[in-house]
Amino acid sequence: MKDNRILRVAFQGERGAYSEAAAVEHFNGENIEPVPCETFDEVFARVEDSDCDRGAVAIENSLAGSIHRNYDLLLEHDLSIVDEHYLRIVHCLIAHPGAALSDICRVYSHPQALAQCESTLDWLPGVERITTYDTAGSVELIKAEGFKDAAAIASRRAAQVHDMEILKEGIEDNPENYTRFLILAREPIEPPLPAKTSIVFATKNVPGVLFKSLSVFALRDIDLAKIESRPLKGKPWEYFFYLDFVGSMTEERCRNAINHLKEIASYLRILGSYPKAET
Amino acid sequence: MKDNRILRVAFQGERGAYSEAAAVEHFNGENIEPVPCETFDEVFARVEDSDCDRGAVAIENSLAGSIHRNYDLLLEHDLSIVDEHYLRIVHCLIAHPGAALSDICRVYSHPQALAQCESTLDWLPGVERITTYDTAGSVELIKAEGFKDAAAIASRRAAQVHDMEILKEGIEDNPENYTRFLILAREPIEPPLPAKTSIVFATKNVPGVLFKSLSVFALRDIDLAKIESRPLKGKPWEYFFYLDFVGSMTEERCRNAINHLKEIASYLRILGSYPKAET
Repeated sequence: MKDNRILRVAFQGERGAYSEAAAVEHFNGENIEPVPCETFDEVFARVEDSDCDRGAVAIENSLAGSIHRNYDLLLEHDLSIVDEHYLRIVHCLIAHPGAALSDICRVYSHPQALAQCESTLDWLPGVERITTYDTAGSVELIKAEGFKDAAAIASRRAAQVHDMEILKEGIEDNPENYTRFLILAREPIEPPLPAKTSIVFATKNVPGVLFKSLSVFALRDIDLAKIESRPLKGKPWEYFFYLDFVGSMTEERCRNAINHLKEIASYLRILGSYPKAET
Repeated sequence: MKDNRILRVAFQGERGAYSEAAAVEHFNGENIEPVPCETFDEVFARVEDSDCDRGAVAIENSLAGSIHRNYDLLLEHDLSIVDEHYLRIVHCLIAHPGAALSDICRVYSHPQALAQCESTLDWLPGVERITTYDTAGSVELIKAEGFKDAAAIASRRAAQVHDMEILKEGIEDNPENYTRFLILAREPIEPPLPAKTSIVFATKNVPGVLFKSLSVFALRDIDLAKIESRPLKGKPWEYFFYLDFVGSMTEERCRNAINHLKEIASYLRILGSYPKAET
C-alpha cells in the first residue's frame, strides 16, 4: 500500500459517520476512499469480495459497551484484524451556515448521541429532541429539508461533508467517550511490537474450563485486554469467548499459549495480530 | 407470599409479551397480577418503589445473547435476584378468528422474531414482512386496525390476551430458542440447594487479575455458569464483570470464595442467591 493506489475502506453508516471519521483519522495521510455501507454485514462482505481493501468497524464504546453484532460477524467471515484505532467521540451541534443557537427549536440525532448530550440539551430550554436512525444522516436530513430552525448532533466530519456549520463542538456530557475500531483485511499481517492479538474460542462444558483457559496466558505473564462472551447458537448456555491479549503470534510465548489453549478448547481461531494502539 | 394476597409482577412490554408469559409460567398457580411496563427501567423502579412485589426481566437469550441493559440496571438499582426462569420461545402466527393462512398478505412483528421465523415466512411466498416495536403489540395492532389479511408473530399468551387465533404454532427455525429471566425483589432470600449466585465486581487494572479472580472459584471447585463484562463508565477499557456461579451464599465455601475475591476486587456486590432452575 506504499504506492499511490487508492485504498478503498468500507465503513458502516452514511458519509460523515463516526466510522468514516475513524477511517480518515487512522489512515491519516494515505490516499483512501471511504466507502459507506448500509450494514455491518455489508462492510465485511465488501472486504471479503475484494470490492474494498479494508473495513473499519466499531467494536466497542467506552460508555455503551461492545458492538456484539461485529463480534458475531468476525466469526462468520474469514477476515483478519490488521490494526486498531481509538477515536475520541466529540459530538458537535450542527446547523445551516449562518444559523444562530437562538434559532434552534429542534435537535435531530441518534438516541444514543442525544442521551450523551443531555446536559447541553437541558441548557437549551424548549428545544424538541427528535430521534433518527443515525448521527450523520441527521445532518443530511436538516440540510435536504432546509430546516433552518433545526440542528443535528454528529461528528465534525459530518459538518464538513455536508458543508454545514458547527454551532458548538464537544457537547458530550462525559469526555471519556471513546470508540475502538478494528481495521479488517483479507490477509493477516506480522505486526511490529508491541502488538495485540484477538482470538475466539469455545470450550468443552466442564467445570473450571474458563479458569484453565485463562491460565495459559497468566502462566506466561501474557496480559489480557478484553474478554467478551457470545452465545454458541444451537447450544444454549454455552459460549464463544473473544479474547484480546497483549502480544503477537510472531512471539514464541504467544504461540505456546495458543497451543496450550488448543488442548482445552473445542474450537479456536486467531482473528489477527496487529499493532497495539495508544488509548 | 403463602397467603391469598395478589403478587404484583412487573414486566417489560405490552400485555401478552414473552416476559408476561415467563412471569405467568414461573408463578404457576400463584395469584399474580402481571403489570406491564414500557421500559426495563420502569420494571426496576416499580419494584424498588414497592408498587410491585416482583420484577421479571429477560437477561439472556440462547440465540441473541445477553440483554446488556438489564445487567447495567442490576448495578444501578438496589434489588435482589430471588429466582430464575427459562422460557422456551415458541413463536405463533396469530390472526383474526376465522382467518385462513391463505388470507394472509402481511406479517407484523419485532425484527428479531421475523428473523427467527425466516423458513416459515419463506414458505409463504409474496407475504410482506413489516417490522414493529414488539411482538405482542403487533397482535394488538392487527386487532385494533381490523387487518383481516394480516398476521402477527408473538407468544401463545398474546393470542389469548387479545382473543385472537393461532394459525400456526412453533414457527421458529431454531427450536433451541430459550430466554432466561431473573425474578427480582427488594429483599434477598436464602434459597434451597442446588442454588445459583450472581455477583458483579470490578478489579484493579493489573495483569492476570481476571485469572486470579476466577481462581477463587476454581480452587474451591465452584462451577461458573456465566461471565459477562460491561464497561466501567468514566474509566475507558476497564470493566465490571458479572458472574453466575453454582452455589449459595448460605454455603461456607461460597462465602470463603467471595471473601477471597474481595481481596482482589476493587468493588464487589452480591446480586442474590436463588434456586437453580432446570434448563
